[in-house]
Amino acid sequence: MRIRVYNGPNLALLGKREPGIYGTETLAGIEARLAARAASLGVAVECFQSDIEGELVRAIGSATGTADGLILNAAAYTHTSVAIRDAIAATGLPCIEVHLSNIYRRETFRHQSLTAPVCLGVISGLGAQGYELALEALVRHLRTARSQ
Amino acid sequence: MRIRVYNGPNLALLGKREPGIYGTETLAGIEARLAARAASLGVAVECFQSDIEGELVRAIGSATGTADGLILNAAAYTHTSVAIRDAIAATGLPCIEVHLSNIYRRETFRHQSLTAPVCLGVISGLGAQGYELALEALVRHLRTARSQ
Amino acid sequence: MRIRVYNGPNLALLGKREPGIYGTETLAGIEARLAARAASLGVAVECFQSDIEGELVRAIGSATGTADGLILNAAAYTHTSVAIRDAIAATGLPCIEVHLSNIYRRETFRHQSLTAPVCLGVISGLGAQGYELALEALVRHLRTARSQ
Amino acid sequence: MRIRVYNGPNLALLGKREPGIYGTETLAGIEARLAARAASLGVAVECFQSDIEGELVRAIGSATGTADGLILNAAAYTHTSVAIRDAIAATGLPCIEVHLSNIYRRETFRHQSLTAPVCLGVISGLGAQGYELALEALVRHLRTARSQ
Amino acid sequence: MRIRVYNGPNLALLGKREPGIYGTETLAGIEARLAARAASLGVAVECFQSDIEGELVRAIGSATGTADGLILNAAAYTHTSVAIRDAIAATGLPCIEVHLSNIYRRETFRHQSLTAPVCLGVISGLGAQGYELALEALVRHLRTARSQ
Amino acid sequence: MRIRVYNGPNLALLGKREPGIYGTETLAGIEARLAARAASLGVAVECFQSDIEGELVRAIGSATGTADGLILNAAAYTHTSVAIRDAIAATGLPCIEVHLSNIYRRETFRHQSLTAPVCLGVISGLGAQGYELALEALVRHLRTARSQ
Amino acid sequence: MRIRVYNGPNLALLGKREPGIYGTETLAGIEARLAARAASLGVAVECFQSDIEGELVRAIGSATGTADGLILNAAAYTHTSVAIRDAIAATGLPCIEVHLSNIYRRETFRHQSLTAPVCLGVISGLGAQGYELALEALVRHLRTARSQ
Amino acid sequence: MRIRVYNGPNLALLGKREPGIYGTETLAGIEARLAARAASLGVAVECFQSDIEGELVRAIGSATGTADGLILNAAAYTHTSVAIRDAIAATGLPCIEVHLSNIYRRETFRHQSLTAPVCLGVISGLGAQGYELALEALVRHLRTARSQ
Amino acid sequence: MRIRVYNGPNLALLGKREPGIYGTETLAGIEARLAARAASLGVAVECFQSDIEGELVRAIGSATGTADGLILNAAAYTHTSVAIRDAIAATGLPCIEVHLSNIYRRETFRHQSLTAPVCLGVISGLGAQGYELALEALVRHLRTARSQ
Amino acid sequence: MRIRVYNGPNLALLGKREPGIYGTETLAGIEARLAARAASLGVAVECFQSDIEGELVRAIGSATGTADGLILNAAAYTHTSVAIRDAIAATGLPCIEVHLSNIYRRETFRHQSLTAPVCLGVISGLGAQGYELALEALVRHLRTARSQ
Amino acid sequence: MRIRVYNGPNLALLGKREPGIYGTETLAGIEARLAARAASLGVAVECFQSDIEGELVRAIGSATGTADGLILNAAAYTHTSVAIRDAIAATGLPCIEVHLSNIYRRETFRHQSLTAPVCLGVISGLGAQGYELALEALVRHLRTARSQ
Amino acid sequence: MRIRVYNGPNLALLGKREPGIYGTETLAGIEARLAARAASLGVAVECFQSDIEGELVRAIGSATGTADGLILNAAAYTHTSVAIRDAIAATGLPCIEVHLSNIYRRETFRHQSLTAPVCLGVISGLGAQGYELALEALVRHLRTARSQ
Repeated sequence: MRIRVYNGPNLALLGKREPGIYGTETLAGIEARLAARAASLGVAVECFQSDIEGELVRAIGSATGTADGLILNAAAYTHTSVAIRDAIAATGLPCIEVHLSNIYRRETFRHQSLTAPVCLGVISGLGAQGYELALEALVRHLRTARSQ
Repeated sequence: MRIRVYNGPNLALLGKREPGIYGTETLAGIEARLAARAASLGVAVECFQSDIEGELVRAIGSATGTADGLILNAAAYTHTSVAIRDAIAATGLPCIEVHLSNIYRRETFRHQSLTAPVCLGVISGLGAQGYELALEALVRHLRTARSQ
Repeated sequence: MRIRVYNGPNLALLGKREPGIYGTETLAGIEARLAARAASLGVAVECFQSDIEGELVRAIGSATGTADGLILNAAAYTHTSVAIRDAIAATGLPCIEVHLSNIYRRETFRHQSLTAPVCLGVISGLGAQGYELALEALVRHLRTARSQ
Repeated sequence: MRIRVYNGPNLALLGKREPGIYGTETLAGIEARLAARAASLGVAVECFQSDIEGELVRAIGSATGTADGLILNAAAYTHTSVAIRDAIAATGLPCIEVHLSNIYRRETFRHQSLTAPVCLGVISGLGAQGYELALEALVRHLRTARSQ
Repeated sequence: MRIRVYNGPNLALLGKREPGIYGTETLAGIEARLAARAASLGVAVECFQSDIEGELVRAIGSATGTADGLILNAAAYTHTSVAIRDAIAATGLPCIEVHLSNIYRRETFRHQSLTAPVCLGVISGLGAQGYELALEALVRHLRTARSQ
Repeated sequence: MRIRVYNGPNLALLGKREPGIYGTETLAGIEARLAARAASLGVAVECFQSDIEGELVRAIGSATGTADGLILNAAAYTHTSVAIRDAIAATGLPCIEVHLSNIYRRETFRHQSLTAPVCLGVISGLGAQGYELALEALVRHLRTARSQ
Repeated sequence: MRIRVYNGPNLALLGKREPGIYGTETLAGIEARLAARAASLGVAVECFQSDIEGELVRAIGSATGTADGLILNAAAYTHTSVAIRDAIAATGLPCIEVHLSNIYRRETFRHQSLTAPVCLGVISGLGAQGYELALEALVRHLRTARSQ
Repeated sequence: MRIRVYNGPNLALLGKREPGIYGTETLAGIEARLAARAASLGVAVECFQSDIEGELVRAIGSATGTADGLILNAAAYTHTSVAIRDAIAATGLPCIEVHLSNIYRRETFRHQSLTAPVCLGVISGLGAQGYELALEALVRHLRTARSQ
Repeated sequence: MRIRVYNGPNLALLGKREPGIYGTETLAGIEARLAARAASLGVAVECFQSDIEGELVRAIGSATGTADGLILNAAAYTHTSVAIRDAIAATGLPCIEVHLSNIYRRETFRHQSLTAPVCLGVISGLGAQGYELALEALVRHLRTARSQ
Repeated sequence: MRIRVYNGPNLALLGKREPGIYGTETLAGIEARLAARAASLGVAVECFQSDIEGELVRAIGSATGTADGLILNAAAYTHTSVAIRDAIAATGLPCIEVHLSNIYRRETFRHQSLTAPVCLGVISGLGAQGYELALEALVRHLRTARSQ
Repeated sequence: MRIRVYNGPNLALLGKREPGIYGTETLAGIEARLAARAASLGVAVECFQSDIEGELVRAIGSATGTADGLILNAAAYTHTSVAIRDAIAATGLPCIEVHLSNIYRRETFRHQSLTAPVCLGVISGLGAQGYELALEALVRHLRTARSQ
Repeated sequence: MRIRVYNGPNLALLGKREPGIYGTETLAGIEARLAARAASLGVAVECFQSDIEGELVRAIGSATGTADGLILNAAAYTHTSVAIRDAIAATGLPCIEVHLSNIYRRETFRHQSLTAPVCLGVISGLGAQGYELALEALVRHLRTARSQ
């Protein structure tokens, strides 16, 4: 079982800056912990980050046939990208959307998600732990689907 | 560490009806599994369900001093109840909002949550498993807060 | 054939007050006339009134398996209750919505009905007689469905 | 007692097409049944159908002095015609609005009715039977008014 | 100098009904007075009334080359007819819009005029006299234009 | 019969500037022609102009008991002044609103008039002649009212 | 003269929590002070609190014939309850709406009051003292009305 | 294979007026060229024009059973006619919507099309040539459908 | 302790006109009663009225250093004046907003207050008595603040 | 005559996936057919596809001086990209917008096109054939323009 | 070259109050520095401040023929004054709008500027220095225009 | 002191095209003049242009620790990019937004800036000179901040 994890704009800087707000954990650290969790669950994760919307579109498009499920933190593109929404929908794969912060506590324009309607579910506001919870849920979803 | 779980209108009927859609698991079953997970995490959960908004308000109000964290599935009241929002805010306790279905895939009036802005985070669309993920996240959040 | 009739907030006061506007007929009177009409149609009606949204939710939830069709006058909750809408939808039973007054002649916020989209149809503005017309239509609908 | 019945655009094709959806009853059939019902109630009905908004306006305008009450299914013009609304209001006669389908279950632009605010009431979603219920209610309304 | 006057839906009934509100003057009376005023101004008026939007469109379309200016009371179509707007614009002739009642004192949907932006000006709320004022203004406008 | 005429901001500059657009007639010229017309109608006009909203409010407030009717060109304040609206309403006098340009042909924020709903009628887009037409209509309105 | 005072959801917790924000005065304390003030004014007050919308509806419905005026702090239900609005309107009694905080300083959804349009007036943002001011105003209003 | 072509209000005047804008080609000319193209494609076209919405509704309604596909330029009715939309949908035939001008370059109210959601596709802004392109696309669509 | 009272446009006419609606009390009378009440409370009041927005702005601006609290009835400017809002905010003084009528019972544009968000609280709909209640509340607020 | 064809995000995957929906034709296949059609028309086409908005911007920017006309299917960027709109406008070249699906039949956010207002016209919902129709129209447009 | 500088409501109090926020510089100080800068640029500035909208309108109206360019800080009137907008437009002079604070960082109703669309440009959020930058830009603009 | 200057989509083409509108100055020319001005101010500027949103995000992200202040002309992305807004906010550096044209004079969708709320200020409509004014203001801001 192969899971692809997509991170969007500004997330490469995690942990390097404003540690008082976002903590001291880097994106590499989050990905490493996620890989460890994946190993314990017996699945493989492959992570991709880009600040460029179209690179995310292309990378998501390449998931069909090479992955079983997706985890997406599109960051700022969550609220503006019809293209990423179309890419997720085109894969036909189950996807869980993750946000580090609770998008309902932020500016009104962040309350709306263009990508959530084509995802299985959303985890928002639970920090880096949200990725691990998403992985756990996705694996259980895929195993349930296979067993039916 | 004591966690209170609040379920809102129509959830008492889970599993008794439309099993093709909602699965065959009852609310009692979900609560039992949640209690087992809680035990393994070394915490206690106490569950409360009501179809009546004001009973939920009163029950949430009684959590201060008797609970350390909250899990809330306000169901239909998520989108209409300022009173439950005020009750959550008044406790000053961390709360995680759970929805069985992905609210972004349903009617537009379900995209907005009145309670989410006063919660720590939201888990939506991951089915009954969402409660367990919320419990796991809440316990980790409380332990991190205590250790600081 | 068993029909359940649900009446919402402030309707218990019908006929007791402002007879110049609402007439002198009480809710009990309306229910009695409706029972007589039901008898003549060879069906049974059971009536329930509550000012409390959640009690209406619970009572509607209990209709599955014990009733064949529903008549609903949710009064003020028509315009605010997602919970009653969800309860009606969950029963899977045909329901006809009734309003004593023509909701399109009143304030703008009464033009929208949250419950109508999950009902078979709506009768509005025809006074107490609306219940009888709803009963007649519901019985005919159920008999047509059975004969197919 | 004379009742005028007005049917709007596309209704002349009823029963001739898409019988799986609209049933096999033609507009002529509905009008015949309505006439029979009227006879049993001791009143006369006169039916008029046009696809042309202005012909409906003119026909409604001619009702003053020659009719006692109106039944209106303006179909698509329900949502766009200020002219039909003005015509109904100008007659000063009681009118009941009928829709074959439940307009609240259809596209958002069909939820609003320009004509309903000048009508006595609305019956929506009860199929061809809605005309008969409207007739019954209108006759009772007129008899009550006369007896006062 | 030839002036065409167009009257829209429901205006044929003027004076015949609700004299308490609209006065006892008929449309024929208004047109006669307008013709007299036109004569005294040395111009000819030709009047046209229809309840049918498309007939107004056609009649307006025929004005090019046969009229020098237009007076339009589109009544209810003022607020809904893009077709009449396009017809007025296509003539390239100066047009003055007239309303018997003050459209700003009525329902909100009557505050907007689709036809006014393609007219020279608007006279609203001054009763039947509004037509004469429009005629006077139109004639002066045309004579000024000619003398330049 | 005494008529008060109120002109609002920027109108003192009429005719002094941009003659290509607004013509070469000054406000004084318009007022003089209006006085002549008033004389021929056997009434008196008194004109007041101010760029200051509150001065217009005060001047309108002083009309009660000293005037029989009002003509108002509130210019830019038409769209923003609740205070002038309240002042007009408080006088209880018939008022006709005049605009030199057709407000429906300009920016959207000029389509709405806060003052029109408390006026008898509106004349818009007929240039300086609009004042004379308003005077004529107002005098006829007052004479009709008196004769009743 | 008998005055009924209705308090809505979450108000039972006043003074018990977050004293830094809401002060140390409990609802019981506020009610006691209000009773003392009432005594000094020679009127009786009866207080009712509920977290349940429908219980407030029922309690307000019972005021007709047993009370002369009402004071209402519907708290969160102010912004969502058509049912409480209808209940207040049905009593036909003068009611003054009170809010501890200034609702215009809070979230946008709290700026709108569904109940205020059926009340005599509103006092907002003056803390617990607001109840006493409301009582004073209500008594004076009732005495003035009686003396006329 | 028979194709019906419907043209709406004001289109009868094409080419007769404002040749600088719309070109010198008349509607008859466009229809003749379209017939020639149809002949070369081996299909028959029948053209209908009306300024009257209801006549278009009736003519479209008569297409079932007598035509295989439709081309529609509803002109101004595109943006206001629910009745024409319903008529197109009722035929169950493939329809291509044509506009001479690019509706996105004009007033905002022309950006929305009520008829497009029930059509196969839309060609806008390509002038009279748009009809020929629509014919070509419709024929290819019908032939593909038949061959499957 | 010095309190400044500001009254806005049209309020100078109070009591002089429409006594059936606004009562026979003049602004001078209200101010006199307010002064008496102030004397009994041991504070001084100074009253200012203007129809001119900018004069109110200037007068409010001069309150810093010369007053301890403000009472504001901005009348029509309540709904349109950002400038008065900024002036109140700039003083840094506690201000209570007063309205003679209940603004929620009037036109929709009067439901919104631009000044309320920078005030301590609002009293609306309690007539002239509202000023006295505001004075009482303001004095108590200032004394509480001083004693802390 | 040189025509540039721009395809936006997710279009590289055409034909490779979901053939039941989008058919089995790849983008390469569409481009090949388009090149053949171009050859038969005696013009050259050059095709460019990118998932990256800014690469499309840059490629469009390079068209000035090297192309005579443009065909654009911006896919998801149609609804979100002001940058592509600006790029098209900056070239000053005629452009025809193409959509494979009928954007009016899809989600509301796809009804609006940011790029259409700077294009000559739009072809929507006619599948891959839409490109060929656009090419035909563009060539005819350019030849007509040259011949004038 | 003569430049007029207009300052609106509440700006006379600059520097006298809340120095922690707005700095200690008074409006007189800003004007003095601006005059010095003007001298160094070889131009004259004349400054005008008023809290009264209509005085600003009149003062702007007097600029035609006596000034070459304008600098405007309309403060709160920026968002509400159509009259000042009309005055600026009427002068036909280039005007630069200045705001001390960044209006996009403040309340939503301050994001919109009624005056900016008739100005050359806007400088916002750069404090008192914004006036000097505006002066520099205006002078360069005027010199460029003259040299052409 | 090091200043970074970011230019967004389509700006690389400045001066190469449409010189009648945008002038003959290229982006390189603007950057050269800006460097000269920077030198005279004793600071260094580094310029970056990209048509790709994500490249701008990445380049802005790299400014922390290597720059003291930012100048941003995000062009079309100003109105659509949450990602660039987040990147600016993440740097924690003062940024001044520049637009060559006055965005308030253009289409409505250009009036809103997503990036301005996280910037110090905005200069709009002053052409290429805007960059120099921004540089001057930014340097003064940084020197003032350092000296405190």
